Amino acid sequence: MEGDVERTKKYDTIAYEQSLRYKGKIQVLPKVPINSLKDFSVWYTPGVAEVSRRIKENKDLSFELTGRWNSVAIVTDGTRVLGLGKIGPEAAMPVMEGKALIFNYLGGINAIPLTLRTESRGEFIASVRSLEPSFGAFNLEDIESPKCFFVLEELQKNMEVPVWHDDQLGTASITLAGVINALRVVGKKKEDVRVTLIGSGAANVAIANLLIAAGFRAGNMMLVDHLGILEPEREDMDKLMMENPLKYKLAIDTNSERKKGDIESAMKGSDVVISASRSEAGFIHKEWVSGMNDDAIVFALANPTPEIWPHDAKDAGAMVVATGRSDFPNQINNSLIFPSLFRGVLDARAKGVNFDVMIAASEEIANFVSDPQPDKIVPTMDEWEMYPEVAATVAYKTAELGLARQRKSREWFRNNAQEIIENNRRLYQSILKEGFIKKMEVL
Amino acid sequence: MEGDVERTKKYDTIAYEQSLRYKGKIQVLPKVPINSLKDFSVWYTPGVAEVSRRIKENKDLSFELTGRWNSVAIVTDGTRVLGLGKIGPEAAMPVMEGKALIFNYLGGINAIPLTLRTESRGEFIASVRSLEPSFGAFNLEDIESPKCFFVLEELQKNMEVPVWHDDQLGTASITLAGVINALRVVGKKKEDVRVTLIGSGAANVAIANLLIAAGFRAGNMMLVDHLGILEPEREDMDKLMMENPLKYKLAIDTNSERKKGDIESAMKGSDVVISASRSEAGFIHKEWVSGMNDDAIVFALANPTPEIWPHDAKDAGAMVVATGRSDFPNQINNSLIFPSLFRGVLDARAKGVNFDVMIAASEEIANFVSDPQPDKIVPTMDEWEMYPEVAATVAYKTAELGLARQRKSREWFRNNAQEIIENNRRLYQSILKEGFIKKMEVL
Repeated sequence: MEGDVERTKKYDTIAYEQSLRYKGKIQVLPKVPINSLKDFSVWYTPGVAEVSRRIKENKDLSFELTGRWNSVAIVTDGTRVLGLGKIGPEAAMPVMEGKALIFNYLGGINAIPLTLRTESRGEFIASVRSLEPSFGAFNLEDIESPKCFFVLEELQKNMEVPVWHDDQLGTASITLAGVINALRVVGKKKEDVRVTLIGSGAANVAIANLLIAAGFRAGNMMLVDHLGILEPEREDMDKLMMENPLKYKLAIDTNSERKKGDIESAMKGSDVVISASRSEAGFIHKEWVSGMNDDAIVFALANPTPEIWPHDAKDAGAMVVATGRSDFPNQINNSLIFPSLFRGVLDARAKGVNFDVMIAASEEIANFVSDPQPDKIVPTMDEWEMYPEVAATVAYKTAELGLARQRKSREWFRNNAQEIIENNRRLYQSILKEGFIKKMEVL
Repeated sequence: MEGDVERTKKYDTIAYEQSLRYKGKIQVLPKVPINSLKDFSVWYTPGVAEVSRRIKENKDLSFELTGRWNSVAIVTDGTRVLGLGKIGPEAAMPVMEGKALIFNYLGGINAIPLTLRTESRGEFIASVRSLEPSFGAFNLEDIESPKCFFVLEELQKNMEVPVWHDDQLGTASITLAGVINALRVVGKKKEDVRVTLIGSGAANVAIANLLIAAGFRAGNMMLVDHLGILEPEREDMDKLMMENPLKYKLAIDTNSERKKGDIESAMKGSDVVISASRSEAGFIHKEWVSGMNDDAIVFALANPTPEIWPHDAKDAGAMVVATGRSDFPNQINNSLIFPSLFRGVLDARAKGVNFDVMIAASEEIANFVSDPQPDKIVPTMDEWEMYPEVAATVAYKTAELGLARQRKSREWFRNNAQEIIENNRRLYQSILKEGFIKKMEVL
């Protein structure tokens, strides 16, 4: 695994040099014809006044008469960017641009990176709310915990378009998809398994709640943080109640045997371990995996370095191992879910998104793997057929739940999503082919 | 002029139908190569972390390592949209999208329309300020007066990128360019002429201030509003002082003879009339033009219908007549200035913009008309060579004034602007030619 550090350093250098050369990752282009300046009489004054009048009469027409139907804001305050911590909004931009690139490339979505300079929760919430009329959905990103829980809840409650925090909801959805298939591989049932979550930040709190919503027993779950296993008699409970109510609630609902202790004791007798904690190989000891039940499932999700190398986990008896990395099997990668989830909610002109929609998406992704194996529990990013399927499932589920402004058949949603994604891909391939994007020769 | 109403109605219908068909006017596309999913190791994790680290160390690197250098936010609160008034942020979007289209088509700029739902001045200011790290410059648009004066001043004072309110500054700059050449046509000097401004909203307050900064004598100017000629003894002066300090200051500085009265008496003896008031032909009477000095200059800028038809103004003795319309000579059109002004401030990575920069731009535009004539005082939008010239003048002036993060020669700025604009145009033409944008067959 020495090569790994080298490889990361190589990517560092290349990324810096290529960013200097390309100066941004996305561009804006017209999507309407302009054959002469006269056409501005339609696209701008005087014609545009009538379009505005129509929307004034019925605000929902903004999804039909403007680009709002396909526009997503990617919003961060730069308080917890990758593993870099609170690096600020300017420094967060390269990451958000990368995300916008993936939104566009995989979902055919016009995603706009917005890195906000805000001081308080309230300021952040106010800024995002003010942007609501311009976008069909919002993707929050890289916001420190527990702030991220409050802002997500507040924004979802008050906005009439879907608000998603990918570090919570995206990670939870794709993890659920992976866990569903891992259980198929080992032949265990969600109602029976004991699940240990190591780390209780944005990702694992969301994963725990989604697993519970999906039918896993809260009592069979344990969360562990730097103070040990979460349980209601812990000294920090009063503080948690005030500062992190979602985690507080999990402390009460999970761990029905009221076990206390460290990671090792939490893992003992578990069927599934999901770790989203420290990017350090060996943070989870091999012996701890050995203490798990037979046919153990280990998700070591820290990036770039998982908490235990897959071969070590397997040596120690794990049957299924997943990480966040593309160079190992079973990459638990948000990019498998967010492009199609947003494609789906946009196509339904959805008013919101919830656990039911996420569970439907996770099941669709899991089912897309026709024959789950220990080294194949989730699709890979290049299984293109998946995206329109998941988008259709999301859109249709949203409609079923009464969250959609646009209700269509699942087939309509599927064909529509496929057409949008493919047209966008073809357009991009054309400008590549015509030489409008310089080649990158270093990779 | 009956045909005019018909034509506007025709554009209304077409604009509505075509907006339903095209569903937005701009799209996002990648501007970097993606040959395989491996490239995301450079554009996203793990490589992107290094790019973020660099910007964290030096925030100004966000202009070199991300798309910020070419990104402009078009921001409105929807309180005064076209002639439609306070129609709200959703309904303002078609107009802002049209503006973004022009930004892109003429300036090669990635302009993002953001229509904000804010209640107070303070909320609007806070939202825009929070967006600062994401953009290289801000274009405010269609904000009611006098709110627009306060927010522009406050944002310019507190932000380290240029903030522009096009209804004030764009209109003022292109009007100044037109007036410079109109005076050349009639052989009068700016120090000598008497200027009457009819209407004292965003446009005329800015025009008055820019003319004064450019060397016109404040004392020789008069502003007229619905209460008549502005002068220091008017009953509303106390109210103005509190609610509209810019207009209050003009009441004191202009009209040195302290004339009182109506539009007619203000126009009497004027050399130049600039009207930005009511969209109603005949609002300015022919006889009032006859009362002006010889070789009168009349700018009737209300849209879509000027305050007096050009042929009526000429009948009444005007030598030079300008309007806001493309179907008459001398269209005073903001699109002649804002794309290249923004191109210029972006290319200089400017920290701000001021009257000196605007005056330089206005003079460049005026000088671009090699032989000014009564019916040719400003360029038309399709004189493409103008845009890089004005951009270069703006960028170079910004550098001269110490407002630039990037200092280069005027020639460098010109070639750079031309290359950006032409590459963008070629890219757009290519996707048109390849059939990725459906033809509009109705025009």
